Amino acid sequence: MTLNKGLQAFPRTEYMRRLSAVKSDMAEREVDALVVFHASNIAYLAGYTAQSAYVPQALVISAHKEEPTFILRRMDAPAALHQTFLEHGYVVGYAENLIGNPEKDGYDAIIDGIHELGLANRSVGLEQAADLPARVLEKFKKRLPKARIVDCDKTVHWIRMVKSDLELTIMREAAAISDAAIMRAADVIRPGVREADAIAEIIGTLARGANGKVGTALAQISLCSSPRTGTAHIAWSDDVFRNGSQINLELGGKRHGYCAGIMRTFSIGVPSDRLRRVHEAEVAGLEAALNTVRPGATCSDIANAFNRTIEGFGLKKESRAGYPIGLNWTEPTASIKDGDMTQLKPNMTFHLMLGNWIDEDFGYAISETFRVTDSGVEVLTSAPRKLFQL
Amino acid sequence: MTLNKGLQAFPRTEYMRRLSAVKSDMAEREVDALVVFHASNIAYLAGYTAQSAYVPQALVISAHKEEPTFILRRMDAPAALHQTFLEHGYVVGYAENLIGNPEKDGYDAIIDGIHELGLANRSVGLEQAADLPARVLEKFKKRLPKARIVDCDKTVHWIRMVKSDLELTIMREAAAISDAAIMRAADVIRPGVREADAIAEIIGTLARGANGKVGTALAQISLCSSPRTGTAHIAWSDDVFRNGSQINLELGGKRHGYCAGIMRTFSIGVPSDRLRRVHEAEVAGLEAALNTVRPGATCSDIANAFNRTIEGFGLKKESRAGYPIGLNWTEPTASIKDGDMTQLKPNMTFHLMLGNWIDEDFGYAISETFRVTDSGVEVLTSAPRKLFQL
Repeated sequence: MTLNKGLQAFPRTEYMRRLSAVKSDMAEREVDALVVFHASNIAYLAGYTAQSAYVPQALVISAHKEEPTFILRRMDAPAALHQTFLEHGYVVGYAENLIGNPEKDGYDAIIDGIHELGLANRSVGLEQAADLPARVLEKFKKRLPKARIVDCDKTVHWIRMVKSDLELTIMREAAAISDAAIMRAADVIRPGVREADAIAEIIGTLARGANGKVGTALAQISLCSSPRTGTAHIAWSDDVFRNGSQINLELGGKRHGYCAGIMRTFSIGVPSDRLRRVHEAEVAGLEAALNTVRPGATCSDIANAFNRTIEGFGLKKESRAGYPIGLNWTEPTASIKDGDMTQLKPNMTFHLMLGNWIDEDFGYAISETFRVTDSGVEVLTSAPRKLFQL
Repeated sequence: MTLNKGLQAFPRTEYMRRLSAVKSDMAEREVDALVVFHASNIAYLAGYTAQSAYVPQALVISAHKEEPTFILRRMDAPAALHQTFLEHGYVVGYAENLIGNPEKDGYDAIIDGIHELGLANRSVGLEQAADLPARVLEKFKKRLPKARIVDCDKTVHWIRMVKSDLELTIMREAAAISDAAIMRAADVIRPGVREADAIAEIIGTLARGANGKVGTALAQISLCSSPRTGTAHIAWSDDVFRNGSQINLELGGKRHGYCAGIMRTFSIGVPSDRLRRVHEAEVAGLEAALNTVRPGATCSDIANAFNRTIEGFGLKKESRAGYPIGLNWTEPTASIKDGDMTQLKPNMTFHLMLGNWIDEDFGYAISETFRVTDSGVEVLTSAPRKLFQL
């Protein structure tokens, strides 16, 4: 029996628009095929969000065909048929004997697919070829001896930086979930409560969602509490919150693969003078950064507005001030940092990530997810921009 | 100010024992240094479980030094000092300007570290060198021209297949959390309930833990309900459970990086005859597989016992019957499948994964996490081995 299509996150026309942009880029590069490996780019171009990227899979886009072909593990082919607009014949499940098999694996199935699509003698673009495992790149070269292999680097990542209105609707839904989870954290973080019990409530909110729109997966979450406020990426710990504890929280709602990140800092009891001063500087820096956002400004402009402002308060931040966000959190293209001359365009979205790990034992977290508008900025996250005192 | 050590998951002696096993292997391979990249192996050898593996990091083990050196992003160095037994001087944080920088990145910092450890002219083993990004392997060769680069493949993965008593204690704690989450699912999955609301409760249990031991992170979770029971890896959906729905659930408790996987199938209302027959066959196969487990038996023996049994019921399963589990779910060494002649040893642990995606629109899920004992098997997960009727 065939499995019916599920509720699609986007109409077919939206995927066709995205594919068309990719095909234009392929034409400029003079490639006949683009092999897309990254899970987030496969989600972008076909709507697939099942969690199967721990084994080889690829979307093969032929310049000569309207629809791409998705080659993945047979076990996951039904999910692809259900979640994507692709019909039978465009979803190719490879046999399970290619799993845990050092001789022949899913990459062989992808190469077989390129042969079957009649592309083996053509110009074949590989997404981020230089980042492929060395043995895999070798295999492509060996098994496609007549192809011209082209490293297409991050072509899809760059295209998807500018979001459509349909994507922005989903990102606003994700942002509302982020806000709800922050407010839930403010409700449940109390002295004597185990971190794990607070996290249970917070991630529960990330799943339940907001405004009738559920979270459809969990993004990474970090809860770094005293004495760990100088750390950035600890999920949570076995500890219990205490009077005087500071808690740095980073989380994000996620819908149909789209994330909206947010960070806030909490204090159980009166915050220290040092923490209040850092908060004041960081909020001023955040506002200065947001005031810089408009089409034509650069990522560097945003970072410098932030850095100049906090330097006025005697503070520095070593790490970058953010990155594009959308499908699967960090998009690996621009960086909000001094010297990144990427120009902002309307409907680009960023996580303005101002977490500042100042000392080994002291840090602070605040961030927003924003969109570049035609004339300025829309901040998608909207939890109070305060140092939460609990 | 320095950050104090956190509660360590294991005593220093345990890490020294593990490092000693790795150094013996290094001696056999005649390598002076082993560069360990995999997050789960860094957790194994040093106790680090923060979520920073999306940027380059490596543990460099010198044959000539007792303690390894952990090179990672500066932002994450405090977490390394807090979570691991390593002292200042053995945790090297690299500068933030190596993030989002196409010219020079964290791998350069790792290579610099190899130089500083005096290992640049020696025999340098790289973990799974052939799986490193092609450009990274090239960089190691270019920047270590006098080193003999050796592909050490999965040396640490193979060593950690056999668990210590201390590890097994934590895996039993994780398994108790897995069981609790399955029982919570049986409580909350009801007609009219949104999948997301059930998931909120289930993941809440995975965080809250069991028997006073909290979950310290979340492992991947999949809830594939009607009509999606033929899919394996969809997190969950926007849907609402209905009378007659079937739900296949895969989840696992996680403590200090250690997972214990479990799958169970649920039916809202009376299950179909087909589902009951599949369940009967699969449980018989599961029991036959477990009865085969003893030191000296092979992974192939387990798979064949399962396959022969379900074939007696007229059923087949194409995918493998499981894999080693421990740190970070799937350990990429042996496979429980026909022809895998890996011999079982006491204290190896496996996820006997008998999920069976039979048709595009029909599948079934059952699994257990087990340990090989001196004479047979200990099943770590213990939720009722039944088709849950809700």
